[in-house]
Amino acid sequence: MNKTGKPRAGAGAAKVPAATATPARNRQPAETKLAELKRRLLEISDLAAARSVLRWDQATYMPRGGAHARARQGATLSRLAHEKSVDTALGTLLDQLAPYAAGLPYDSDEASLIRIARRDFEKAIKLPSAYVARASALGSASYDAWTRARPANDFAAMLPFLEKAVDLSREYAGFFAPYQHVADPLIDAAEEGMTTASVRSLFAELRSKLIPIVRAICDQPVPGDGCLRGSFSEPAQLGFSLSVVKQFGYDTDRGRLDKTLHPFCTKFSSGDVRITTRVDEKHFGDALFSTMHECGHALYEQGVAAALEGTPLGMGTSAGVHESQSRLWENLVGRGRAFWEHFCPVLRDTFPDQFRQTGFESFYRAINKVQRSLIRTDADEVTYNLHIMMRFDLELELLEGHLHVKDLPEAWRARMQADLGVAPGDDRDGCLQDVHWYGGTGTVGGGFQSYTIGNILSAQFYAAAVKAHPDIPLEIAKGEFGTLRGWLREQLYQHGRKFQPSEVVMRATGGPMSTTPYLVYLREKYGELYRLDLAPLPEHLQNYVPCAAA
Amino acid sequence: MNKTGKPRAGAGAAKVPAATATPARNRQPAETKLAELKRRLLEISDLAAARSVLRWDQATYMPRGGAHARARQGATLSRLAHEKSVDTALGTLLDQLAPYAAGLPYDSDEASLIRIARRDFEKAIKLPSAYVARASALGSASYDAWTRARPANDFAAMLPFLEKAVDLSREYAGFFAPYQHVADPLIDAAEEGMTTASVRSLFAELRSKLIPIVRAICDQPVPGDGCLRGSFSEPAQLGFSLSVVKQFGYDTDRGRLDKTLHPFCTKFSSGDVRITTRVDEKHFGDALFSTMHECGHALYEQGVAAALEGTPLGMGTSAGVHESQSRLWENLVGRGRAFWEHFCPVLRDTFPDQFRQTGFESFYRAINKVQRSLIRTDADEVTYNLHIMMRFDLELELLEGHLHVKDLPEAWRARMQADLGVAPGDDRDGCLQDVHWYGGTGTVGGGFQSYTIGNILSAQFYAAAVKAHPDIPLEIAKGEFGTLRGWLREQLYQHGRKFQPSEVVMRATGGPMSTTPYLVYLREKYGELYRLDLAPLPEHLQNYVPCAAA
Repeated sequence: MNKTGKPRAGAGAAKVPAATATPARNRQPAETKLAELKRRLLEISDLAAARSVLRWDQATYMPRGGAHARARQGATLSRLAHEKSVDTALGTLLDQLAPYAAGLPYDSDEASLIRIARRDFEKAIKLPSAYVARASALGSASYDAWTRARPANDFAAMLPFLEKAVDLSREYAGFFAPYQHVADPLIDAAEEGMTTASVRSLFAELRSKLIPIVRAICDQPVPGDGCLRGSFSEPAQLGFSLSVVKQFGYDTDRGRLDKTLHPFCTKFSSGDVRITTRVDEKHFGDALFSTMHECGHALYEQGVAAALEGTPLGMGTSAGVHESQSRLWENLVGRGRAFWEHFCPVLRDTFPDQFRQTGFESFYRAINKVQRSLIRTDADEVTYNLHIMMRFDLELELLEGHLHVKDLPEAWRARMQADLGVAPGDDRDGCLQDVHWYGGTGTVGGGFQSYTIGNILSAQFYAAAVKAHPDIPLEIAKGEFGTLRGWLREQLYQHGRKFQPSEVVMRATGGPMSTTPYLVYLREKYGELYRLDLAPLPEHLQNYVPCAAA
Repeated sequence: MNKTGKPRAGAGAAKVPAATATPARNRQPAETKLAELKRRLLEISDLAAARSVLRWDQATYMPRGGAHARARQGATLSRLAHEKSVDTALGTLLDQLAPYAAGLPYDSDEASLIRIARRDFEKAIKLPSAYVARASALGSASYDAWTRARPANDFAAMLPFLEKAVDLSREYAGFFAPYQHVADPLIDAAEEGMTTASVRSLFAELRSKLIPIVRAICDQPVPGDGCLRGSFSEPAQLGFSLSVVKQFGYDTDRGRLDKTLHPFCTKFSSGDVRITTRVDEKHFGDALFSTMHECGHALYEQGVAAALEGTPLGMGTSAGVHESQSRLWENLVGRGRAFWEHFCPVLRDTFPDQFRQTGFESFYRAINKVQRSLIRTDADEVTYNLHIMMRFDLELELLEGHLHVKDLPEAWRARMQADLGVAPGDDRDGCLQDVHWYGGTGTVGGGFQSYTIGNILSAQFYAAAVKAHPDIPLEIAKGEFGTLRGWLREQLYQHGRKFQPSEVVMRATGGPMSTTPYLVYLREKYGELYRLDLAPLPEHLQNYVPCAAA
């Protein structure tokens, strides 16, 4: 049958009475409806991509005079995309396609598309437009205030915004009631399938095993990192960073590297996945590791199967799984001994004056220095998770009402002292340091846990890759990354959002999320680096996550 | 009355019966309807601005892998903007606001907004969506084919596309029937109020006076321009170009300069008007004059009154008037003797090795060299108009059906020989050289005349500015442009699209469009440069358009 509902002429065309009680559109075959579904989803995807181009431009090249109109233009695109996402015709199509999807294999592109589009639709329609507009407005106003309040160390200025954000977060949760914990809907939005309880249990386990490692390291003298300070020209740093990520496999025919204040990765299509970095000409490291980090996100997005382009499946599956890839390439690969066995000579060629005197071990220790510190984004990969857990716990207390916003600065200092043995002298380096509670969606909660989930999964994915291809560390030591990237693409990247995070982990690693690979990795790497006297690992875990080339 | 139609409480609120036969929206005051009109127009403007950001990005930084999806994303935004432009609710609002507008001064912002929005709406609804989609698809496909056909000198490949474009152009005209000439609706789309007859008459007059000047110049030896060839680094050329246009008054807090293949100016908001240029490191001039040219467009757009932002009035009034500004700043100012009196020393400081040996006169003659040539975009300001007139006449013949597409290459050669005394050896340098007939809106006609109208008006506006402020040439010779820019802003830029081209010319210069200032300018400048033996000007026209500083 064609789109007008008239039977097609020719052999094999079903004879259908010209007029029945069923509306014409209901009698269309599933393929026609699927095409209509894809057309609608593609339009939403195009609007979202245009929105992303506007954001990228704002963060890279936009003259400052453009800010006012740009905020409005972006909001217009977001609103139009939201209107189309909650169109009742979309819901009707998804209803009509349910029986068709039920007959398809679970992991087929079509069944996955209908399943995920249905889930997105159910979530979107729970949020009243007025709520979305209010939350977006609060996010913008709060972010604007925060850009001034943080440098001024003015928590009082942020108090009313943060109180409203906590209220909005509870209101958000209310749209998804019933729930076990008020943070559950916020966590689920970032990490589908996870709950407050499951994150708490995961973090408690990690924490109990992480604290002894942190203590053991912090008993040792802090290694020097003076070799990273000096004069490192911006073009040389950008050139070196780009050459590294191209060797990782970042395709610059389908991407590019630019400078921004806060590095990020953004996708406009499978053929256009961009990364940004920042450069400090007096310090080597930040530009490179930020570039590697964003490249991890970009490899994921560039690796999504072309067939999923322009659909809700055409992107990575969750914040935590995405973060696992930025961490894997930045830390497990980029801060690893094997990597620098190949790249140290290249680095010395690029910066001969700066690194002539620097031995391999000094450099390696400098880029892996562990230190109790105040600022999350500057933290090393060992103590980083303590920063996250603290934020996660504090936001639960805020949402539960056990902690009042006005008491946050003091609660922050107390927890920093308890967990990290240092406390900020002011709120600028304390509870004002992260943008998460002061901007974006205008809500609090559900944002931080993904960083630690990413750390945990980065080691789990890497261990599974090395189990499948034991030569990976040797290849890395030769500056080759094809086998690792190929495995990740096959197991993870190509599927986009077809599977939930837990399904992805199970399919790729053969088991549920586990802290073991990550803890083994930290023990092995930092045990060797800091000559720690840790209890020996059980035999089956030795060489489980190889840090060094054989 | 508020939006719900209920009378407002409080003193002075009109007493209106709670329920009448009139729908609530009709009983809203004009201010409410005007706000609703502006809201709808702003949404269309936001979509158009986002579309422009996508185009700018594509022309500057987009990796090549992004092209496929970008074409689709741009088309989606265009389609959504068109849908909103022809929304019947918009027409109803405009109907309801007509009596209100009639009571306002013609040149008030509100009356102008309602008048121009009405005119745009009437034009937009005449075009069926299916036609818009077909024309856009032909334009894309034809442009894509042209990018290969031109270098391959393959006119045969473009024949079917051009035939379709001619058909589409006739179809376009049909939507606006009745008309006197089939090209009238196409010309009106670019130059509101002009017709085939009025352009023909304007061109005939200009042509009759231009030909003797061209002949006289071409009887003289061609001046050398070897001083413009050498090695001119890209950063130095871009830096010099940017410093010049900043001195013109281009505000880089509300704009920026980037590199592209084909230079252009684009506006995302009054706070973000960008220009692009191209650089040939072996030739000095193209980068600078392209930058000046685009800066002329940008000064116009940066000068539109902020109150018109986000409405159909918030841009320049027509292609020809816009072009008058790019030509004015590029040619009347930027290729003038006064300008270089100030800038030659700056140029020698920037390129000391390249210009040490070059005298002022040699340089000035080199950048103003007149020559019979094959390529429009490389033509000097004297012969340029002959290229335009030829294209204008040929497209009229195509649209009238007097010239068949297959005979175009031969007609082109014959006309080149007759008008310019040179003929192309192939179609690459002949009828395939310009993109206009092979891309864009998928139509032929209405595109070329604006260039010559721009040339004519550039001198007319400049003459009026100097009449009002006789010191302008002296200021230019000191590198000062504020008086000229201020006059243009006052007379022209601030009004945006409030007035038709003919109204703008009348208001700013006190008379209708006239070829006299332009011809006087050419005679004065090139008479002096080439020591031509031209009949003396009548006394009232002497110093009418001063080319040199006093």
